[in-house]
Amino acid sequence: MDTAVLPLEEDFLYNQLAEKLEKNILDGVLKTGDKLLSVRALSKEQGVSLSTAFKAYTQLEIKGLVEARPKSGYYVSFRKRNFQAPDNSVQFEKVPEEASVDDIVSMVYQSLNAEGLIRLSIAVPSNELLPVSKLSKTMAEAIRESNDSCLSYEATQGNLRLRKQIARYAFNWGGNITEKDVVTTQGCMEALVFCLKAVTEPGDTVAIETPTYFGIFSVLQSLGLKVLEIPTHPETGISIEYLAGAINKVDVKACLFVTNFTNPMGCILPDDRKKQLVELLASKDIPLIEDDIYGELYFGKARPRTCKSFDKKGLVLLCSSVSKSLAPGYRVGWCIPGKFTEKVISLKRMHTVSSANPTQAAVGLFIETGRFDLHMRNLRRELYKQCLLYTRSIAEHFPESTKISQPKGGCVLWIELDQKIDAFKLFQAGMKHNISISPGHIFSTDARFKNCIRISFGMPITAEVEHAIKILGILAKDMLKA
Amino acid sequence: MDTAVLPLEEDFLYNQLAEKLEKNILDGVLKTGDKLLSVRALSKEQGVSLSTAFKAYTQLEIKGLVEARPKSGYYVSFRKRNFQAPDNSVQFEKVPEEASVDDIVSMVYQSLNAEGLIRLSIAVPSNELLPVSKLSKTMAEAIRESNDSCLSYEATQGNLRLRKQIARYAFNWGGNITEKDVVTTQGCMEALVFCLKAVTEPGDTVAIETPTYFGIFSVLQSLGLKVLEIPTHPETGISIEYLAGAINKVDVKACLFVTNFTNPMGCILPDDRKKQLVELLASKDIPLIEDDIYGELYFGKARPRTCKSFDKKGLVLLCSSVSKSLAPGYRVGWCIPGKFTEKVISLKRMHTVSSANPTQAAVGLFIETGRFDLHMRNLRRELYKQCLLYTRSIAEHFPESTKISQPKGGCVLWIELDQKIDAFKLFQAGMKHNISISPGHIFSTDARFKNCIRISFGMPITAEVEHAIKILGILAKDMLKA
Repeated sequence: MDTAVLPLEEDFLYNQLAEKLEKNILDGVLKTGDKLLSVRALSKEQGVSLSTAFKAYTQLEIKGLVEARPKSGYYVSFRKRNFQAPDNSVQFEKVPEEASVDDIVSMVYQSLNAEGLIRLSIAVPSNELLPVSKLSKTMAEAIRESNDSCLSYEATQGNLRLRKQIARYAFNWGGNITEKDVVTTQGCMEALVFCLKAVTEPGDTVAIETPTYFGIFSVLQSLGLKVLEIPTHPETGISIEYLAGAINKVDVKACLFVTNFTNPMGCILPDDRKKQLVELLASKDIPLIEDDIYGELYFGKARPRTCKSFDKKGLVLLCSSVSKSLAPGYRVGWCIPGKFTEKVISLKRMHTVSSANPTQAAVGLFIETGRFDLHMRNLRRELYKQCLLYTRSIAEHFPESTKISQPKGGCVLWIELDQKIDAFKLFQAGMKHNISISPGHIFSTDARFKNCIRISFGMPITAEVEHAIKILGILAKDMLKA
Repeated sequence: MDTAVLPLEEDFLYNQLAEKLEKNILDGVLKTGDKLLSVRALSKEQGVSLSTAFKAYTQLEIKGLVEARPKSGYYVSFRKRNFQAPDNSVQFEKVPEEASVDDIVSMVYQSLNAEGLIRLSIAVPSNELLPVSKLSKTMAEAIRESNDSCLSYEATQGNLRLRKQIARYAFNWGGNITEKDVVTTQGCMEALVFCLKAVTEPGDTVAIETPTYFGIFSVLQSLGLKVLEIPTHPETGISIEYLAGAINKVDVKACLFVTNFTNPMGCILPDDRKKQLVELLASKDIPLIEDDIYGELYFGKARPRTCKSFDKKGLVLLCSSVSKSLAPGYRVGWCIPGKFTEKVISLKRMHTVSSANPTQAAVGLFIETGRFDLHMRNLRRELYKQCLLYTRSIAEHFPESTKISQPKGGCVLWIELDQKIDAFKLFQAGMKHNISISPGHIFSTDARFKNCIRISFGMPITAEVEHAIKILGILAKDMLKA
């Protein structure tokens, strides 16, 4: 759909009703298997038209929250399982570790090239959910529009139009910045590398959340940095209390946190805690590298804020990209490095001269023309639906004891299996069936999450995917019996 | 011209004749101001048609080697000035230095954004010499052809088609490699970064040639490496004798040399010395990072070989890109890291995940379809012409004592001025006239080449450029008088 349609009153009503019911289901007021009111009864009870009541149920059906059984009516089909929170009262006691890159990471990566593989391990929306042809057209347009067909070196700081659009977009997360504050990069990873290099020296200690994206360990190791892992609560994000204890005892030179929709847990650091975190670090002059790569993939009503929006001292270096929202292969990322901006530009000049010109120009134009807005509205809706459908499928097929995260955005589920199950063995068994998942081992330095797996819901659920989840469930059940 | 035209016999004859005369001029047999035979006399002497003789002179006129004076005939207009070679008998005595990045480098870089600037400081062929619209069309074609419109993450090692074409092209420089040996990167700088990281640790010493491209110092400094500068002879490249002395006294962990058309000197390491260099380093198991970014810009009959072609132990890591030949803004580079290939792939995975997909795909297709070959034939011819025209203009306008390099390829001239002239002051004076040049200061760690400047001939010489050179000449003469 190319045009933005304003909601009619009727639309508004059925959406409101669907949301009310959804909340009841998610909160457990309505439980899996509960029979719902008939369409007629619901219409009467809520004082809405039959068509509104019907549309509300259809909405929930699409999301996989209810199912219509022939000649019987609507039932709640969502099975909620509470995900166990780590004990947040734990006090700091650990010493920083040399980041170790697990062989498992390369195994998981290398496995991705296998033909016909169902890639539940790749944390990115699949191409079906991306505006493939519109973006290609925009690329051609951007090259045509450019003075030099995007052939010349781009200025080191990056494409001006793209930087302006990133600055404009910052308004949504509470930012007040201009194009002068933005440096473009080759994806978010390069942004992290430059920001880390700008604020640390080899041998320094960097605090990160745990569990976290394995790529973070690799890059820290490659830069000769030590890692201090901070426990993360699935509802409230990293433990600021633990961090406060840590920075009093260890010389932490920087923090690197995903603040919105952590990977793999999908949790969000609430606004008041973001503010608290920024203030804590500011009191010690510790820079915070904020990885906000999933920030735009929110399921709620509004874009969550960032720590950067609370930053008064220029100590927060925000990093992001369009790899999780628009075009992984374009490698268009950026950072907003606060008072380290000149340093980051200088590092970029030394290491890469400048970023690829055509891809930056294309993404800049795609945002400027409003195409990005439209696409993101669709993508968020679609990902939320997939999130619910995958959750439902996993709940149905996996062992009873399985716990599933309830992400508020992003594109991955974090699944805690019975302690008896070794996730790496499950990964290996899955690969024999051409299914790849990410074993929990790779999300901490000490393979702490051995009984967890990460599953991406970036790919629309199909019969094939459903079958893959079923097989994984059977394999997990077999391991429980063994 | 889109089609390759085979030379007719007539073409062949006048070319042969023009080449013979050119050689006489370059060797100084024919001197500036010498009157040449009339067209009629030349035709008689050489036994060729009048038209062939006339075409031969026209050819030389285009190159700026001769000029037709009205009612008087043809004269040699090229003024050769010998460029002084450094004393190669110098013995090694220096200790490695911390690479220092001069403020001058950022000043030169920042100056480049000024409006209406004549950029004689930028070592790259200008867009007039690049196949702008053909490459844009190829980009659209490559995206259309691709399964996923180039939207997905490319494999970390890089685009397969591009890697195959790079491997095929290696034949021209004596290489015998396959796509498995190639890793794509974001331009040549990123290739150098990964190769340096693959073979060194912070604190190690790397030998480089002097003078050399200032970007090399910056990147070495950023990686915490020490620099050992090896003197370079304008005819025979780096002094292998000096290097042999150095590696006996200092623990050199790697070498990083431009072996073909060094920047700024434009010299080439002769084949036998390439072999000698590879053997010397192999005897000590020292890796050689070979920067071959200018290798395709040869003015001679054949592509010069590389050190990589003499590499038997996998110790040579060749780095290159299309930034100097096709599309600076595309940031498409690569390396052929020998026995360090796995290490480089792993570093690339950690630091950038993968390279931009569309630009790699476009360049791969551009080479595969033969468009690159055609373009390069034109580009080489054009650059050689520009080289001669710039040399002539500089010789005409600069002080009598000026010495000019005679590059055998590439796109820069290295100019040695009188010792009294400070090149940084000349740079500053030029900027007041909106002309940017590169002062010699930035081509060594200790600002050794204070009376030298680098001028790029990548931009076709126009009245404006000619005027800029004239102004620089006047400024230089004023400084001599002061």
